[in-house]
Amino acid sequence: MIENTVIIGAGNLATQLALVLFEKGLHIKQVFSRKIESAKELAEKVNAVFTNDLAQLLPDADLYIIAVKDSAIQEVLENLNLSEDSLIVHTAGSVPMSILEGFSNNYGVFYPLQTFSKNRKVDFSNIPVCIESNHPSNFLKLEKLGERLSGSVNQINSEERKTLHLAAVFVNNFVNHFYTIGADILHDKKLDFDLLKPLIHETAEKVQTLNPFEAQTGPAKRNDKAILNAQLKMLHDKPGFQKIYSLVTESIFQLQQKHDHGLL
Amino acid sequence: MIENTVIIGAGNLATQLALVLFEKGLHIKQVFSRKIESAKELAEKVNAVFTNDLAQLLPDADLYIIAVKDSAIQEVLENLNLSEDSLIVHTAGSVPMSILEGFSNNYGVFYPLQTFSKNRKVDFSNIPVCIESNHPSNFLKLEKLGERLSGSVNQINSEERKTLHLAAVFVNNFVNHFYTIGADILHDKKLDFDLLKPLIHETAEKVQTLNPFEAQTGPAKRNDKAILNAQLKMLHDKPGFQKIYSLVTESIFQLQQKHDHGLL
Repeated sequence: MIENTVIIGAGNLATQLALVLFEKGLHIKQVFSRKIESAKELAEKVNAVFTNDLAQLLPDADLYIIAVKDSAIQEVLENLNLSEDSLIVHTAGSVPMSILEGFSNNYGVFYPLQTFSKNRKVDFSNIPVCIESNHPSNFLKLEKLGERLSGSVNQINSEERKTLHLAAVFVNNFVNHFYTIGADILHDKKLDFDLLKPLIHETAEKVQTLNPFEAQTGPAKRNDKAILNAQLKMLHDKPGFQKIYSLVTESIFQLQQKHDHGLL
Repeated sequence: MIENTVIIGAGNLATQLALVLFEKGLHIKQVFSRKIESAKELAEKVNAVFTNDLAQLLPDADLYIIAVKDSAIQEVLENLNLSEDSLIVHTAGSVPMSILEGFSNNYGVFYPLQTFSKNRKVDFSNIPVCIESNHPSNFLKLEKLGERLSGSVNQINSEERKTLHLAAVFVNNFVNHFYTIGADILHDKKLDFDLLKPLIHETAEKVQTLNPFEAQTGPAKRNDKAILNAQLKMLHDKPGFQKIYSLVTESIFQLQQKHDHGLL
């Protein structure tokens, strides 16, 4: 049973994960970050000690959680100096579990599928926690840990996790960029972004119960050329957004055609 | 004061608007739809009579609401046979108020900025109702009506409404298409769309309080080339989605660069 952990990283995910583990009664023994200020800041929130030196990691923690950016995982691993039986996980969507091979006999992945910001508390209770491990006994430990945080614990292998991460980029990163574009379009005309908030909310709520293809509305779906052309023209001074408008409109229309011809 | 209305149209918006007006105690005198079945279906829900013949519209309603698709508004207007003082509004984002000129002495626009589906009830109380009218006395009537439905009633002219509609296409139509793409990517690998729902929800909730530019996370923002290239490759059998991936990634990166160079 995992009762204590060392958190390696102090970014958005590391912070939110440490906070919820602490809240659920786990002992956070130590926080590592390359930036000592960041390590300290998080450590103080979870009653932990902190370090910016991987050689100073405390031994004998039940679990070491590597929650640093993808490109830094390899370097962290190479500088760990732990017993060969330490249980080590990373938390990355697109990094295969195999990156951990050779650094310990016990390892896995603990990937919460959510967007995290340092200063925005999230409700972990329904976040899908995606778990993979090199051994059933480790899997069981990680699964139990996941169940302390969330009602949605899922066995997901590295290939599946990559697929989830790709889909997440569309429904989070790209979606959020479209919120930014919406805000930018309104800003230019001195209109308040608040006007879009109920629409943004409802758009996300709709697909909690409706299939997103069925939830689709708007001029692209109806192939309403008059509006489509008028809106393209309105974007003449924003060629980047104009290109996106054309391409996404085309994609919506194509999908609708496929559907109408029974190919979907 | 507007106490009764005739609803022209029985689509998504017409349906939801009729339902909420009825709920708020207004008398829906009549529902028109070209399809008599649709007219009947909605009319029964709001205790109204129905017709599929514009020549049969009841006279002397306090308000005639044209809630048909944009391309049908002109034809509806040309076939109306009402007294010249009837108050007539349309509900379209991208159609200027001037389309109503010459068909009555009293007209305006009543545009609720939201996505509607026939069978999904929406909470109208915070939907921005965007109002424009040809005369202050008509504006006042429409404003009062708006306030019976929503806490957010806004004076918005035709130019501004077009801008709002363009932004709405990005944050609703295009966003929903990305939900569809996410679902499609998971479907191919037999992964459950439910796994994305908490992320979709949180992505929309985040920008209710955070500025969307600040809420941005992910590989495009970080310019993490390893993930970006790997994800592009994963889309090799979906060239349409691949193009979208490239273009939106580039757009996120450009915006980030602008910001980093103090140009935003």
